[in-house]
Parts: sequence; structure tokens; C-alpha cells
Amino acid sequence: MTPSATTPSGTESPADLIITGCTVLLHDDQERLGFAPDAAIVVRAGIVEEVTTAAEAEGRAALERIDAGGQVAMPGLINCHTHAPMAALRGLAEDLPTEEWFNGVVWPVESNLTERDVELGAQLACAEMIRGGVTCFADHYFTMDAVASVVARCGMRALLGEAFFSSQGARGRERSLEFALRHRGAADGRITTALAPHAPYTVDDADLAATAALARAHGLPVHLHAAENRDQTDTSLARHGVTPIEVLERTGILDADVLIAHGTGILDRDLPVLARAGGRTAVATAPRGYLKFAWPTTTPVRALRDLGIPVGIATDGAASNNSLDLWESMALTSLVQKSAEGDPRWLTSRQALHHATLQSARAVGLGSSVGSIAPGRRADLILVDVTGPHTRPVHDLAATLVHSARSADVRTTVVDGRVLMRERELLTIDVPAVAEELEERLPALTRRGHGRRVQRYDT
Amino acid sequence: MTPSATTPSGTESPADLIITGCTVLLHDDQERLGFAPDAAIVVRAGIVEEVTTAAEAEGRAALERIDAGGQVAMPGLINCHTHAPMAALRGLAEDLPTEEWFNGVVWPVESNLTERDVELGAQLACAEMIRGGVTCFADHYFTMDAVASVVARCGMRALLGEAFFSSQGARGRERSLEFALRHRGAADGRITTALAPHAPYTVDDADLAATAALARAHGLPVHLHAAENRDQTDTSLARHGVTPIEVLERTGILDADVLIAHGTGILDRDLPVLARAGGRTAVATAPRGYLKFAWPTTTPVRALRDLGIPVGIATDGAASNNSLDLWESMALTSLVQKSAEGDPRWLTSRQALHHATLQSARAVGLGSSVGSIAPGRRADLILVDVTGPHTRPVHDLAATLVHSARSADVRTTVVDGRVLMRERELLTIDVPAVAEELEERLPALTRRGHGRRVQRYDT
Repeated sequence: MTPSATTPSGTESPADLIITGCTVLLHDDQERLGFAPDAAIVVRAGIVEEVTTAAEAEGRAALERIDAGGQVAMPGLINCHTHAPMAALRGLAEDLPTEEWFNGVVWPVESNLTERDVELGAQLACAEMIRGGVTCFADHYFTMDAVASVVARCGMRALLGEAFFSSQGARGRERSLEFALRHRGAADGRITTALAPHAPYTVDDADLAATAALARAHGLPVHLHAAENRDQTDTSLARHGVTPIEVLERTGILDADVLIAHGTGILDRDLPVLARAGGRTAVATAPRGYLKFAWPTTTPVRALRDLGIPVGIATDGAASNNSLDLWESMALTSLVQKSAEGDPRWLTSRQALHHATLQSARAVGLGSSVGSIAPGRRADLILVDVTGPHTRPVHDLAATLVHSARSADVRTTVVDGRVLMRERELLTIDVPAVAEELEERLPALTRRGHGRRVQRYDT
Repeated sequence: MTPSATTPSGTESPADLIITGCTVLLHDDQERLGFAPDAAIVVRAGIVEEVTTAAEAEGRAALERIDAGGQVAMPGLINCHTHAPMAALRGLAEDLPTEEWFNGVVWPVESNLTERDVELGAQLACAEMIRGGVTCFADHYFTMDAVASVVARCGMRALLGEAFFSSQGARGRERSLEFALRHRGAADGRITTALAPHAPYTVDDADLAATAALARAHGLPVHLHAAENRDQTDTSLARHGVTPIEVLERTGILDADVLIAHGTGILDRDLPVLARAGGRTAVATAPRGYLKFAWPTTTPVRALRDLGIPVGIATDGAASNNSLDLWESMALTSLVQKSAEGDPRWLTSRQALHHATLQSARAVGLGSSVGSIAPGRRADLILVDVTGPHTRPVHDLAATLVHSARSADVRTTVVDGRVLMRERELLTIDVPAVAEELEERLPALTRRGHGRRVQRYDT
């Protein structure tokens, strides 16, 4: 369906959904943000047909109508890097250095994971994300068939990748490819897929090169961790004489479309490497965990932006981040970047919203279909209440959204024109049932006496 | 009333309030935190009479009973340094360096403030704080009679101080004293007061020395900004050869009980000065603003704790912090301190909760009456829902509260045994009426063409 410019007429068939009375966050053709008050959004067949005035939409027929007075309509938020099933491990490994977090808790526990654990963890994560206004997430985990099934049922959009280590042999990479091909375009197109090598320190060069060849051959993007922290970069330099980003270049990964998680260990010498990347490169930043692990640096957002690289916002998994709250990640990105650059004028609220909307959409390979509310785009959008005492008065609506609003202010979440949460009521996931079954499984899931690990952290 | 150890009996008069079925956060006599499941809290005459089991409380008579299944009862949070009326300016001065924030926007606008503006801003702030589980706040502002009146009506507890600059002459200090004496013990004892010089860079040594003498003579604490950032410390050293903390010592302020806001510019040389302070010294940390202003350091919490100095949690005013969300401040304190110390094991969730409860109570001079839920303490407490998808499962309840729970999870807020919010419904403040009147006043309030300022920022 193409964008419609029709005016109301008695013969036009009713729209599927009209949201009216809201202020709409819009992007202009210069990628600047603006706000249209007293607006209405007309949705048909899962697509934004028109953004018009509330007055103009009054006479339009619609199968469903949402009065969104006092609310802001925004593009749905996109969690550009997470491990949804790890919601099951939220709070299990606290106040630990990275190595102990992996080797002492997370990787031993992950050797117990069953498909049902993954499915329940992903359901809990999707429930949290829908409630927090996240409409799309990029997931990187194991047993991803279970996650794909959850995404299909709960109505979210996702970029999914089956993670692998070289310790699994060639079979890991093959399974990642099989997953990507099997699920690409599933759930009415809401599922897209990526190849998902874990990281340059757990996937060797030959395996990365083979992955790059598969990405090219099948037109698949690659989603992986790289230069997560400065230690990983230092170790890579000491062992191999190259940085993790240089490893991605020499193995051909940078000739594919690639989504790099974290990149807090990206050095100045990596910037020209990223600048000459043959594919589309994007980086996901999830600053909460960097603080919690006491990593010495954060994602170099300003340097990446200077290269034109989109930087999307992310939460990482709940086992390290404790939440999948994109609002917190968006605000922290602004705060931490100001601090890291020593510049309070940098990463304004409008920039933060641009990262959380269009840049995040680009980061997950959906830059032409979601990330803004405009005719022809998929109708992935959220309604945010700004009438609470903590969001009044509004001197600057962008600042209100980034620095004052909270995830619980999201009233309604819509994906592909379908309402997944209405007035804070989740419509597609039964949280008490999921949480109850998951909690029964925790003693078996969290057992660590067996001495097994899915992998060893040794950067 | 003294704590009761009585068992249920037919002749005992009904309690005023029994909260039952919750998990209660308790402090032991070693100041460690623990959680008592399936517990009940019995409140009589504004005081916690007993913490017992839900089963034991079942047969007790009470005028009011709250079933708090699935919720955690915690001491009400304490905002140890704010400027409540500045809620009116939330979002007005964004992405600016400290000096421009003060000189270009905030101090010119504050020269327009009327008593009614202050009252409305404070009402909005109190509404936000009650909704976020804050039961007590330390306020430092102008026209504080209006704030005292709001506190009396809305039911919160507060430590209030009328701010002054030396540019006001002796009259500023005198009015701060008059305010402190007039309101001390007001609102049935919920209001306590402090002398409130603005800061060593805006109040001269003679004025500080006179303030210290008044504090001693009248048994009043002093609440002020000091060593807010490193620039202020550097300027003080360059102009006077001493740090702001050394100024507080030489003027006798440190011989009074003193609450220091921020202290991110505290140097190692200040630590022995603070160690030998004659009065009770406490520091309030509000880390969000330090990041937003891109200050190079944060409050040296670890060094202060090594001296036994309580460090309370705060939000500062909403004009810089954009919110009065103590949950965010508590989590950020943990995250930023880990990062600043380069130590992920430091400032655990239990430590963060200790800062937010007992240490914050001590910081505002109420260490023996609030800050923990125990027989004989004032019944200032909150009920927090931990059944949402973002707080499940619970592997570590302290981590759930600090890193996963959000201010909107507070269901019920109680001060002095009186319910101020029940199931998220505010009972003492009419937010729509307040916000509407405030918004009508904003054009006059935010006018800046007049060229006036209440003060000039020149550290």
C-alpha cells in the first residue's frame, strides 16, 4: 500500500486504526525532530497511511479509534542489542567483574538452559519490553527457535540471530545460518534474521571469514559483540597485534552489513577502518552495564557519528542490565555521553530521540520501514502520557521525553497496526502464568555444581 | 508511645493501620539489611508499634488494613537535597554548562518568582515525590513559607531552609533564622528546619561565621551547597588559598550539624578536615546532574564512608535533574560509584539501600526517628509492587529494588501513619488543578528580558 493523500469521503473504506488528539513526534527530511500537536494518525493494513490533524480525522471511519489526548505518539522504541531469554537470570550475578560474571555464574548456568527456559525468559522479556514501549528488538542468544516462536505469538518485531562460538566447530556457524534462513521474513515479515557469531575473542578468524562469506552469499547481516571493553581490545592487540575491529575487517565481516554490540573498546585507530567498511556498519550502545561492570570507557558515540555510523540504543540482557528499559538506556546515553565528552551541549534530548528512533531502526536494518511515523512506514508506535506530575510543566517536549518520562508512562504499544498493550494492559502475554512457571524452573536452571560452562571468558 | 510487645487480646484497642502480607525491609543492629517475608506492620498514633508475621496480625483489630501481597514494605525514601519549587522550571534550561544554566536562565527567571509560583511548584514536586515513594525531603529555596504550607497540607515530612546570599546583606541570614525558628516542629513535628546559606562562593566568610554562631546558639543544623564541582574548588584555592571545605571549617560551620550538597569537588586534603568536624556532617549526592553538566568528578562516597560520614541520596531540583525520582538517583549512585572507583564490587544494592534509608535519614537529622521500619520509629513507609514483568524473577531482592524496580512500582505511600497515596491515587494533592494554574503563570515566570538576576554565578 502506498501513502494515501485522499481526503475524507463517504465511499472510502474505514481505516483499521485512528489515533487522535495526540502530539506526534515527526522527523523532517533533514532528519530533524519536530512535534505536531492536535494530530491524528491513520493506520491501514499495518501501515501509517497518513498523519493529519485531529480535526481532519474526526469524520473518518475506523474499525478502532484511540483517543490519545495528553499523550505523545512516538515511533516504537527499538532495543538494538539484547539477550531476551536472560530475563530469567535477572539479579543472579550481581556486583561482579566481567570475567567472574561470565565464568562464575552466567556461562555455567547457561549450560543448564532448556528450550522451555528460553521460551519463558523470552516471554517475560517481551512482556517487559511491550510495557516499556519497545516494539522491536535485536536478539542474540541460543535456542532461538523458541524466541522466534515467542515473537510470532506476542506480536513484536525482531531481528534474531542464533549465537555461536568456534568451540562448537563448524556446526555452530551452520546452525546460525540454518536459523537465519528458516526464519527470515517469518511472522508476516516481523522477523528478520542475522548471522550471530558471539565475538572475535570466542570465534576464530577462519570461522569469522566463513561467516562473512555466508553473509555475502545469502544477503544476511551479521550481529556480534566486538571491542566490548578496553580489556578485550588490549588482549587482542597483545595476542594478535590487531584490534577486534581490525579482526572484523581482515575477516571480511565489515564487508557485510554488521551490527556491533557495545564497542567501548573501539580505539582511534579503528575509526578509519570503520570509515572504509564495505557494508553498512552500526553500533548498539547499552551504557548501564558499562557503568555496572566499571568498564573504563563507553561507546565513542561522537566519533562514530562523525563517520555517519548509526548508533542505536540497547539494554543488553537483563542478567547484566537488570532491566530492558529503553527509556533508561536513552537517558543514560545522553548523560554518559555528556560526561565522557566533557560537553554538556552534546547529545541533546533531540539527538537522544534520533538515536532511539531512526538510528536504531537503521542499526537493526529497518531504516526504511520503521523508526519514524510517516506515510508508508510500518505502524510501530507508542503513546506516552505526559500529564503526570513528573512530566509537568512541559517547557521542552524532547527533554520531557528523554529526561523526565519513564517507561511506565507508555500507555499503548502498537506493532504493525496491532495493539499489543492498551492502557497498560498487555494483550498478548500472560505474565503471571509465565513468571510462575519460570520460577518453578529456577532451581534446576541456576544449578552450578556440575562444573560445565557453555564457554570460558578469556577475552 | 513506646514500642509494644503485647500479644493480641480482646481488650486491646484497634491499631490505626495494619499492613499485612508484605515482605519487609529491615535493618539489624549491625546496620545490615534483611527481608522478612509474609510479615505485617502494626501502626498506632503515627508510629510503628510492631513488625510481626502476617499470620500473627490476622486476628488483630485495625481501623485501616492494607493487604500488601506481592509488595515490599520499605522505609519511605528521603530526598536529601532538592529545590522543590524548581519543578516549575523542569526542562527550561537544557544542555547548558553550569555557568550559563545559572546566569543565562535560572537566576534571571528566579527574579520573577512569586509566592504563588513557589507554592505551585512545590505542590507539583510533592505530588511527584509522593508518587515516587519519597516521604521526606530536604529543601533549600526562597519564599519557604509557601513550601512549609505545602508540606503541612500534603502530609510529607521535610527539613526546610530559607536560602540566602551575602548579596542580600545581613537581612538574608536573619530571615533564614526567622524562618527556621518560626517553622521548627511545625505540622505536628513533620517540619524540621535548617539555616540555609547558599554556598561558600555566594556567602562570605563573615556571613558564614555569623551563621555558624546562630546554628550553635539555636541548635539548628546548616544545609548548604559546598564544593559542588571541581571548578568551584579550584577557584576557591586560586582566590583564597583554601578549599570550600576548609572555608566551612575556618568559619565554624563544621562545628554545627551540617548537610553538604554534592561535594564532587571535595579533595583528599579535605578528608582530615571533615574527619575532625565538631558537628555531625553529612553529604547529599545527586549524581544525575553531575553527568548532565559534564562535571569531571562525582561525590567521593567511598572516602566519605571511610570517615563514617553518612551519604544521603538526592535529586537536586528538577530544573537541573529533570525529575525528583529517588529510585533513579539510588540506582545511578550505585552505577556511577562503581564506575568512578573502577570497582564493580563496590556500592552493592544493599549498600545503595542503606544510603537511601538510614544514611539519608541521618543526613537530614532524623536518624533516630525515620529511615528504618522498627518499633518506635515514625511510620514513614512505602509499598512497592514487585510482581511486574520487569521485576521478575527475584534472585536477589535488594538488586530487584535498586536496579529493576521503578518509581511507578510504588503503590502506597505513608507518612506518620497517614496514607498519602493509595494504589497510585494521590490523596492530598490535586495535580491537574496545580499544573493548570502553574502553566498559566509560565509566560510571566519565564520572562528574561528584564536583565535582572537573583545572583551571579562566578564560583
